[in-house]
Amino acid sequence: MRTVDIIMAKRAGKELSREELAFLIGGYVAGEIPDYQVAAWAMAVFFRGMTAAETAALTEVMLRSGGVMDLSGVPGPLVDKHSTGGVGDKTSLIIAPLAAALGIRDPMMSGRALGHTGGTLDKLEAIPGYRTNLTGEEFREILIRDGFAMTGQSRDMVPADRLLYALRDVTGTVESIPLITASILSKKAAEGAEALVLDVKYGCGAFMKEIEAAERLARSLVDTGAAMGMRIIALLTGMEEPLGAMVGNFLEVEEALDCLEGKGPPDLMEVSLELAARMAVLGGKAASAEAGRRLCEEALGSGRPRALFLANIASQGGDVDRFLSLRGRYRSAVKAEIPAERGGFIARIDAWKVGHAGVQLGVGRNRTDETVSPTAGVQFHKKSGDPVSPGDLVMTVWARDERGLAAALPQLAAAVEYADRPAAARKLILKEVAST
Amino acid sequence: MRTVDIIMAKRAGKELSREELAFLIGGYVAGEIPDYQVAAWAMAVFFRGMTAAETAALTEVMLRSGGVMDLSGVPGPLVDKHSTGGVGDKTSLIIAPLAAALGIRDPMMSGRALGHTGGTLDKLEAIPGYRTNLTGEEFREILIRDGFAMTGQSRDMVPADRLLYALRDVTGTVESIPLITASILSKKAAEGAEALVLDVKYGCGAFMKEIEAAERLARSLVDTGAAMGMRIIALLTGMEEPLGAMVGNFLEVEEALDCLEGKGPPDLMEVSLELAARMAVLGGKAASAEAGRRLCEEALGSGRPRALFLANIASQGGDVDRFLSLRGRYRSAVKAEIPAERGGFIARIDAWKVGHAGVQLGVGRNRTDETVSPTAGVQFHKKSGDPVSPGDLVMTVWARDERGLAAALPQLAAAVEYADRPAAARKLILKEVAST
Repeated sequence: MRTVDIIMAKRAGKELSREELAFLIGGYVAGEIPDYQVAAWAMAVFFRGMTAAETAALTEVMLRSGGVMDLSGVPGPLVDKHSTGGVGDKTSLIIAPLAAALGIRDPMMSGRALGHTGGTLDKLEAIPGYRTNLTGEEFREILIRDGFAMTGQSRDMVPADRLLYALRDVTGTVESIPLITASILSKKAAEGAEALVLDVKYGCGAFMKEIEAAERLARSLVDTGAAMGMRIIALLTGMEEPLGAMVGNFLEVEEALDCLEGKGPPDLMEVSLELAARMAVLGGKAASAEAGRRLCEEALGSGRPRALFLANIASQGGDVDRFLSLRGRYRSAVKAEIPAERGGFIARIDAWKVGHAGVQLGVGRNRTDETVSPTAGVQFHKKSGDPVSPGDLVMTVWARDERGLAAALPQLAAAVEYADRPAAARKLILKEVAST
Repeated sequence: MRTVDIIMAKRAGKELSREELAFLIGGYVAGEIPDYQVAAWAMAVFFRGMTAAETAALTEVMLRSGGVMDLSGVPGPLVDKHSTGGVGDKTSLIIAPLAAALGIRDPMMSGRALGHTGGTLDKLEAIPGYRTNLTGEEFREILIRDGFAMTGQSRDMVPADRLLYALRDVTGTVESIPLITASILSKKAAEGAEALVLDVKYGCGAFMKEIEAAERLARSLVDTGAAMGMRIIALLTGMEEPLGAMVGNFLEVEEALDCLEGKGPPDLMEVSLELAARMAVLGGKAASAEAGRRLCEEALGSGRPRALFLANIASQGGDVDRFLSLRGRYRSAVKAEIPAERGGFIARIDAWKVGHAGVQLGVGRNRTDETVSPTAGVQFHKKSGDPVSPGDLVMTVWARDERGLAAALPQLAAAVEYADRPAAARKLILKEVAST
């Protein structure tokens, strides 16, 4: 087998065999196949696509490039949720304890903020003492005891994805649906989940700007999961505006706690409940999404998800008393307010602009080696549909430093779009994509 | 400017600017842009193509990546010929002295055999003492004195092409018409030619198997040349069978001398005269290809091209007396004959199979670090259209060693295709492509 023949077969639009993909990816991880050949192959995949069987084979080959979490013996059902990334998206922190309250175990491995999107690990680490670098044994123990555990992916898991993602990032081959599919599913399969709810976001603050592309990705994820024997339900959800009223690391943990106490903002509650309802279905706890949603609402009313959330903080080294005492006041000292520039109605708060301003504030990062601030962020006092008078408070902004604040403020002000009349409310949950 | 943005612009089918191409190619040659980014760009070019202006800009950027031959002050016209490569193609050795006899100067920089195709430098080096590593000053002097000089490209010329070609070879991005165009024309422009006759071959023994692809390449070469201010005429010529009756290094030099003495095989004479006729046109010696051909035929009759050929051998260090004394007998000792397997007519002798068998014999090489034999090769006693009886001698074969002979013989026998009736003669010169 020769790498150049594999590249040329893909270039011609042929379906690569599992053996060819194993040769390519295995050789790449072993350092025997150079990155320039893999880059050319990735660009050919961008143009030619992959069949469902080919995408499943690539996913499995990537999955087997490293170690996997051994969750055998952990009482199931093991169901996880994954989002394609957005701004203000703290649904993981709400859904994991909510599903756990229904008797579902969620082995959650998350990532960090990059570019305009936030990262669950950065949010959790804003809780004093919270550890996201669990050993495999700790992860297993906490998962059994609390019903969920939250950690980063260990270095030895799916090394093929780490290498390939870094290469795609600099070779213009990120936006390939089969490559995105294999990247997401290889990581999720490695963490040991049996079933998966996917939040595939579309809109200006999402990775996929267009609904059509998001739906193609959702379909690819569901079909590839089916080919691998993994049950998946995907929801297409809007990411035009930040989700909820808070963007920031500690701010978002606070808002998740608000939701678990039944007082979260409606958009965030809606997306969280709809996602959790599908986890209930996949976990065998409900026969329909509607029934699952009722179960989730009942569970929230019981206070059990909140208790599990706090229990998990304690299990992962966090200081629960300190966390609760910091609530409402753990904020950067460098602060500003953004008033309404005109009267009328808020048409949209552009999630993409907010996300990029967040990097300036210290919420996120542009390079993986940058650190983030726990206490920086933005609170929205108005969102789309709200009436405003000139000078009304639209956002409160906290920054790591003055320079970051100065850079972020004009971007944040520019993110606010006004209208003379209230627009029709945006549909937040567009559709469900499931196995056919 | 970011490389990934350039890759993504090409991926989207945009025309890259001269500045973007200079950034990319300049950065690559300087070692600042890694090969994996250039590989991804090359694959995007394969799929998206390039405009004529873009191809011309790339050619000029590549040309300027290194030194160029300074032929200022050399009395012109300076006209060269280039072939896209074939089997048994020794036309350069015939055309250069023929054009010189008409008062045209041909600054010829040639390559070496690779894969199934032969290389002019390897053929010339079969002449005892002949040097192909001329200094710039020697090249200039010999060009002025003999009307042509034959050398390899120096290391400092068009380094961008050397790097890019090696990368394309292993990344499945060779077969891109704009990249082939820029590779050929950047090298030809660097050698100092003012005008160029291109022999674009099609057929099983050519780089382009299909006439349509060969014609697209010819059109791209002519149009890009025009955009750069270089006059080009391309001929599409057939490469289904080896050209002439000889394939081998010394064998082909002998056959070139036969042609210069007016006794070469008709197919080789025909292609050489048609190419040389276009050199006469581009060099301002004839108003039409027909008039140019008549001039070439008259020149051959004068014996002057043969004298210039021998003079060049002496100028480049070759031993003319020894060369002439070796004629007809400088052959490898390991020898075999291939008889006709059946009676009827020869339908075709497959050039591609002969070329690859030639590598086994020692005529060519598969890797650039392999050496070739001066005395190995094949002589054809029959070619397409010839009647044969079973057992008639079809080829005489000389090999560097017994192992090579054993490997080549079945391939050579399989290259001979028979028919019951003589097929219509193949058209050797299909058409001319010139500036519109």
